[in-house]
Amino acid sequence: MRALVYREAGLVLDRNYPTPTPVEGEALIRVLLTGICNTDLEIVRGYIGFQGILGHEFVGVVEEIYGDVAQERYGYMKGKRVVGEINAPCHRADCPYCQLNIPTHCPNRTTLGIVKRNGAFAEYLTLPLENLHLVPNPVSDEEAVFVEPMAANFEMLEQVHIKPTDHVIVLGDGKMCQLAVQVLALTGCEVTMVGKHEEKLALAVRRGVQTRLLQDVVVQSIMPASRVDLVVECSGSAQGLELAMRLVRPRGCIILKSTVADQTTLHLAPIVIDEIRVQGSRCGPFAPALRALSQHSVDVRPLISARYSLDEGLTAFKHAEQKGVLKVLVQV
Amino acid sequence: MRALVYREAGLVLDRNYPTPTPVEGEALIRVLLTGICNTDLEIVRGYIGFQGILGHEFVGVVEEIYGDVAQERYGYMKGKRVVGEINAPCHRADCPYCQLNIPTHCPNRTTLGIVKRNGAFAEYLTLPLENLHLVPNPVSDEEAVFVEPMAANFEMLEQVHIKPTDHVIVLGDGKMCQLAVQVLALTGCEVTMVGKHEEKLALAVRRGVQTRLLQDVVVQSIMPASRVDLVVECSGSAQGLELAMRLVRPRGCIILKSTVADQTTLHLAPIVIDEIRVQGSRCGPFAPALRALSQHSVDVRPLISARYSLDEGLTAFKHAEQKGVLKVLVQV
Repeated sequence: MRALVYREAGLVLDRNYPTPTPVEGEALIRVLLTGICNTDLEIVRGYIGFQGILGHEFVGVVEEIYGDVAQERYGYMKGKRVVGEINAPCHRADCPYCQLNIPTHCPNRTTLGIVKRNGAFAEYLTLPLENLHLVPNPVSDEEAVFVEPMAANFEMLEQVHIKPTDHVIVLGDGKMCQLAVQVLALTGCEVTMVGKHEEKLALAVRRGVQTRLLQDVVVQSIMPASRVDLVVECSGSAQGLELAMRLVRPRGCIILKSTVADQTTLHLAPIVIDEIRVQGSRCGPFAPALRALSQHSVDVRPLISARYSLDEGLTAFKHAEQKGVLKVLVQV
Repeated sequence: MRALVYREAGLVLDRNYPTPTPVEGEALIRVLLTGICNTDLEIVRGYIGFQGILGHEFVGVVEEIYGDVAQERYGYMKGKRVVGEINAPCHRADCPYCQLNIPTHCPNRTTLGIVKRNGAFAEYLTLPLENLHLVPNPVSDEEAVFVEPMAANFEMLEQVHIKPTDHVIVLGDGKMCQLAVQVLALTGCEVTMVGKHEEKLALAVRRGVQTRLLQDVVVQSIMPASRVDLVVECSGSAQGLELAMRLVRPRGCIILKSTVADQTTLHLAPIVIDEIRVQGSRCGPFAPALRALSQHSVDVRPLISARYSLDEGLTAFKHAEQKGVLKVLVQV
């Protein structure tokens, strides 16, 4: 089969990659459409030690179900469109996090296109059936590709009680931030996006979100009354947390969404003095994301910058790396 | 009156300090006993920009109540033993934090012996009546002095749901940590104190708390199964948070109790990847602390290292500064 494979030498389009063979409890999935995520770009830059087929934001069709128990339990999925949670835990009795029912943190897990499991820029992939979610008819392929990053934003609502009367600032205006403001706005809260790029801020404005330029916020002196209940840091900047600490009110919350690779130097004392909660946030629940897309309470289509075929995969990655580009999709 | 006053030149015993005059809504309190806190020592070292009478951990007797409304509402307190919350907020209609009912974070607040309000190493002090709590008979003066730091530890239980089945590590073995393990243990959770000083760890052992030497913990490789649900960092070390991040399990919580003055350099990515909550924690509720002391479910008496008279106040401070010393009390 054809696949976009990252190897030591770089990213290549392999036209003769072996079609994967599922193990018991897994499905063989024919991929329809895959999105390029920043994590994919970081792997290609060599920042993450993964080699294999890239891609974890996908929609596909279940072609085969392997194992009798799986057949009985998940037979209804055959031939249907699905999206898939990307972490496959070990489920072993001696795994503390599987036993705690937090499989997304299983230390032995594989992760689609990121850790020890081939990904979705390919004609076929395999995933455990328990990871799959049927895509309802009202949700198009283009929208379904956003379920994984949308779910990662619903994780914030799992972790923190965001109230309809809360004032929230999102630091950053990239594609993750564009999804964040839409998910946060569902709570009824007042969301302000703070970013560097007028054209990206304009996208949020169209969703009824307030926006401010980062340069204006950085220079202003922040008065007590203008500090907010929640700051979501997804700018990817090492200085993001420090700015967030200035913007959040005492007893407020900062959600860290972006994984900054570099070390950060900062004063921790304001966290104690202001009794701030700093909450790390990563992967999230798929079902609420699918519901929001079905109900059209979020709109991801304006975030699509371009669409390529799998054969044009290398070009697609080059495009995705350019400044100002949001989501680039690859059709298989 | 006599008072221990910190001025630019240092700490002095002033034998002719003017007796304070309360304003409407305040009480004049005759001080019985005051505890020396690390914050007092930091003020004397010049780390905090306060000048005036030191001291905020006290028990005293209400001598006078000022104002007709206050007389009517708090008249029953006259002549009674009280402890007092140390932050006096502005209560102004345009103060966002007073309006949010988080007066301990009011930007215009005064704080007993710390910010713009004379403290408790003196024959008399004044505080708003709303700040005062009657001390029940079963609680001795020596115990009542611990209500303020004990309340700061109950703040953790206000902020984070600590479950009876949780495993908790307290980093540090100083006087704050000794109170922390006792308050945490009330939840039924399994507490382990990690510290540098065998004699201080021994104090915790006598309360049924497990202990480990810091040097042993630092060198060990921490396996997934031995990571804990909650780590309380009150060692005061700039490296404390980094160690806490290694010890806490994914989706676990780190409570920051100590205000580290220096900048800290660390990787923030593990907070996101492990979805950790970092919760700053400061002052807390007095009523639960008084209940715990009344019920003898905590025992603060073994934490008292020495007791001096107010006239020996300078000696008391010298003693409190020595290594290995826990709480030093000053009798007025």
